[in-house]
Amino acid sequence: MRSATAFAPATVANVAVGFDILGFAIESVGDVVMVTLTERGTDRASVRIKEIVNDTGTSGALDISLDPARNAATVGLIRLCDELRLNFGFEVTIRKGIALGSGMGGSAASAVGALVAANSLLQSPLPRHALLEYALLGEQAASGTAHPDNIAPCLFGGMTLVLSVHPVRYVSLPVPASILAVIVHPRLRVDTHNARSILKPNVPLADHVQQSANLGGFIAGCFGNDLEMIRHSFSDLVIEPQRASLIPGFAEVKAAAMNSGAIGASISGSGPSVFAWVTSDQAASQVRDAMVQAFRSSGLTEVDSWVSSVSQQGATIIR
Amino acid sequence: MRSATAFAPATVANVAVGFDILGFAIESVGDVVMVTLTERGTDRASVRIKEIVNDTGTSGALDISLDPARNAATVGLIRLCDELRLNFGFEVTIRKGIALGSGMGGSAASAVGALVAANSLLQSPLPRHALLEYALLGEQAASGTAHPDNIAPCLFGGMTLVLSVHPVRYVSLPVPASILAVIVHPRLRVDTHNARSILKPNVPLADHVQQSANLGGFIAGCFGNDLEMIRHSFSDLVIEPQRASLIPGFAEVKAAAMNSGAIGASISGSGPSVFAWVTSDQAASQVRDAMVQAFRSSGLTEVDSWVSSVSQQGATIIR
Repeated sequence: MRSATAFAPATVANVAVGFDILGFAIESVGDVVMVTLTERGTDRASVRIKEIVNDTGTSGALDISLDPARNAATVGLIRLCDELRLNFGFEVTIRKGIALGSGMGGSAASAVGALVAANSLLQSPLPRHALLEYALLGEQAASGTAHPDNIAPCLFGGMTLVLSVHPVRYVSLPVPASILAVIVHPRLRVDTHNARSILKPNVPLADHVQQSANLGGFIAGCFGNDLEMIRHSFSDLVIEPQRASLIPGFAEVKAAAMNSGAIGASISGSGPSVFAWVTSDQAASQVRDAMVQAFRSSGLTEVDSWVSSVSQQGATIIR
Repeated sequence: MRSATAFAPATVANVAVGFDILGFAIESVGDVVMVTLTERGTDRASVRIKEIVNDTGTSGALDISLDPARNAATVGLIRLCDELRLNFGFEVTIRKGIALGSGMGGSAASAVGALVAANSLLQSPLPRHALLEYALLGEQAASGTAHPDNIAPCLFGGMTLVLSVHPVRYVSLPVPASILAVIVHPRLRVDTHNARSILKPNVPLADHVQQSANLGGFIAGCFGNDLEMIRHSFSDLVIEPQRASLIPGFAEVKAAAMNSGAIGASISGSGPSVFAWVTSDQAASQVRDAMVQAFRSSGLTEVDSWVSSVSQQGATIIR
C-alpha cells in the first residue's frame, strides 16, 4: 500500500514572554511518523497504530497509549478520516525522537507528523493551515487543554504567535539571524497536566502589565532586529516562577546560561527542558556546557542538549 | 526675561491592547505652556505658576491647583531645578487645550510642555529622553500613579510602547500610513484615581493569555502593515469591561464606531473620551458622526470630536 513518512520538529513553547501563544521550531530533533493507507471495511477502525518506537537514545519502553482514540498522534487523524468521509484508513508508525514529558512539544510533533504524512496521501490534500485544528485535537487528548503554541511552529516552522484558537489564527514572527537556541533536557518527566494544574488562576494586574510590556518589547525587538531589546524583554514574571520548583536546579541552570552569555533563558514548554537564546556559536557552546553542568550539579546526571537555529522548516515529508 | 513656549500634544493611552504601556500622539489638540526665566533669591521658590488659561472652548474656571508643588505641570520642573542646581527659576503659564479628566493625557501634556519649554532655555539642554522621568513625577502628582503611557508619545510623538518605568525604556512602534484616529470627548469628567481604583487587582489567567495575544497581534500588524491583523487584535478583555460603566453610552458609542467602519474602538486613557481607528477620510467622518450621535442619544449632548493622524511630532517649541 502507499505510504508516506513525515519529520515533525521539536518546538519550544511559551518562550518566556508568550505563555500558551508563542513557540519556535528547532532543527534535527523531532518525531518521524510513517503513515500507510489501509483498506477499510465498515467494521474496521479508520486508524491503527502499528508501532511506537523509542528513538530518543534512551532505553526502556514508552508509556504511550496504542489506542488510536487516546493517542495524540491519531486523535486528529481519526477526525480527519471522519470529516472527509474517507473510504480508506491509515496505519501509523511513530518513531519518537522527542522524549515524553520533556517540554519539547512531543505530542504536537506526533500529531502534526501523522497529519502531514496522511494528508500527502490524499487525492486532494488539504492546505497546511487546515491541519492545525485537527492537530489541536491530539494536543487536547495528550495535555488536556488545546493550545497551539507547539503545533503552529511544528506545522509552519519558524517562530509563531497564536492570535486565537477558534478560529485558529497565527502570525509568523521574524527571528534575528544571529539567534541560536540552546535546549537542555534533563531526563526527568514533567507531567503537562500537573504543570498546568499548579498555576494560579489569576495574574496580579501589575504583573499582567509588565509581562505585556515584555511580550511587546520582545516582538518589537524581533521585528527591529534589536538584540538588546530582546534581552531586556526576555523575562517571565507570570509562569516561570510558578513552575520553577518542578525542575530541580532550574535557578542554577538559568543563572549558568545567563552568566555564560545567553540573552535570555526560561523553561521550554512546561519543562523540564530549559532553553536559552544566544547570539554566537561560541556563546552557544559555553552556554550549553554551563547549563548541562548545572543540571548535573543539581543531581540530574542524564542530560541531553542541542544547539539549533530557529528552524524555518515545519514538518516535512521525508519519504 | 527670556521665555519659550511649547506645544505638547494630546495623547491616547491604553489603546485597547496596552493598558499602562501603549499610547499615541494626536495632532492639533494639546496644551501650550509658556515658561519664563526668573531671578531666584535664596528665599524664592524655583517655580511659580502665573496663570492657567482654559483654552478648551468651554466656559468656566479650571479646577487645577496653582500650587507648583501640586500641579502636574510644575512638579517635575521643580525637581529639575533642584537636581541641576539652577540659580534661576521659572514662571509658567499654561493654556489648557486638553479638557481636565478627558482621558486625553492633559496632565502629561502640561508636564511635558513645561519641561520642554524650560529645557530649551537651559545653557546645556538635556536630551529629550532625560525629561521623561521628570514628567513622570508630574503624572504621579496628578493621577497618583506613575505610568508613562501618555508621557512617552507626548514627548517623542508617534505611537510608543513603554517597556519599563525604572529605568524608563520605550520603543516607537510603526503605525500604518492609512490609519486615522477619531477621538470623541463627551464633556464629562472621569477622575483618574477613581478609574484606577475600580479595577480588580487580578486578571484571570485565560484573559491574560488572550490579551497578550491581542497585544502581540496588534504590534505584529503594525510592523507588518496588516490592517486585518490589527482589526482582529483590537480588543480589550481586561480593562475596558471594567471601565465601560463610567462612561454613559459607551457600548452604543463603540458599536456606532464599529458599525460605521472603524477597525477598532476603545476608551482613550481612563475615559470618558472614546477613540477609534479608521483607514480612510470617508470612514473617519462617518465614524465621528456616528460616535458623536451615539453620545448625544445617551444624554451627553456636549461632545467635542477630532480626526487626526497619529502625530509623528512630539512636544515642540513654537515660540
